[in-house]
Amino acid sequence: MSSSGSKEILELAARIGEQLKQRQWILAIAESCTGGLLGHYLTEIPGSSEYFTGGVVAYSYEAKERLLGVRHATLNIHGAVSYETACEMARGVRAAFGAQLAVSITGIAGPGGGTPDKPVGLVYIALVAGGYERCEHYVWNGDRSANKQASARAALHLIEEYLARPAA
Amino acid sequence: MSSSGSKEILELAARIGEQLKQRQWILAIAESCTGGLLGHYLTEIPGSSEYFTGGVVAYSYEAKERLLGVRHATLNIHGAVSYETACEMARGVRAAFGAQLAVSITGIAGPGGGTPDKPVGLVYIALVAGGYERCEHYVWNGDRSANKQASARAALHLIEEYLARPAA
Repeated sequence: MSSSGSKEILELAARIGEQLKQRQWILAIAESCTGGLLGHYLTEIPGSSEYFTGGVVAYSYEAKERLLGVRHATLNIHGAVSYETACEMARGVRAAFGAQLAVSITGIAGPGGGTPDKPVGLVYIALVAGGYERCEHYVWNGDRSANKQASARAALHLIEEYLARPAA
Repeated sequence: MSSSGSKEILELAARIGEQLKQRQWILAIAESCTGGLLGHYLTEIPGSSEYFTGGVVAYSYEAKERLLGVRHATLNIHGAVSYETACEMARGVRAAFGAQLAVSITGIAGPGGGTPDKPVGLVYIALVAGGYERCEHYVWNGDRSANKQASARAALHLIEEYLARPAA
């Protein structure tokens, strides 16, 4: 990880933290391909325990089902790296932690695991709040570590964008 | 994070991965003060999905109870940063993920949250396998980020030591 990239991400995490504190909102996260990196960034900020309750790192299918309530059929039909699974992960972790806001990340960090339909670097990120859902996908072209970092950064950007909406 | 420190940690994570693969064992983790950093290190290794199923980042009391089954009485009597809570977190995540091996980390990364009895930098790390439990504590003297890194590294060392036991 480049230290400049890291610094920008931590500034983003700090801005989000200020926003969440002002709203007295709690954030929960579900991570697959980032493996905990998003939680690491969020908790680099002193006082993050005020708004970050925790998350689930669900690397395996079984973990996605058992801990996040992702449906077996969703994984079988759409795969772990899909719009549908990302949404169910975010809904699941929001419910499990009783949070106002939840984000999920599921993708293929590489170098293995890619297919013609789902290449290495493909990542779905979902954000779920009360009455609001958004899911985006990205295709990163870095190595495993860079793809993880880009995914965690994109999740933080989605949170910041959501919190900046006039209606949010 | 210094890149040299990071390199050593990733080599350690890779060695553990080889050991776990050989045994066909699954590892699950429960993180509090490290916030996901241990999972991040583990998943920097390509192919880690073969032996790492996931984990729970349980930052709040409520998350420790709801997701990991830590008893309310344990948290009330001993506190979140204690031998007892660390053990219950590791047992809980091992059961939740159906893993052979589990580690947990709970501590005070700082800069706030310290007390005379439980200073900033105090961290408990528990390792639980079938018929085996070990819990260690440490007092780091770095800043928040350094304390998180030292904790994640210590957890990886405990796993490596456990896997090196003749009887393991």
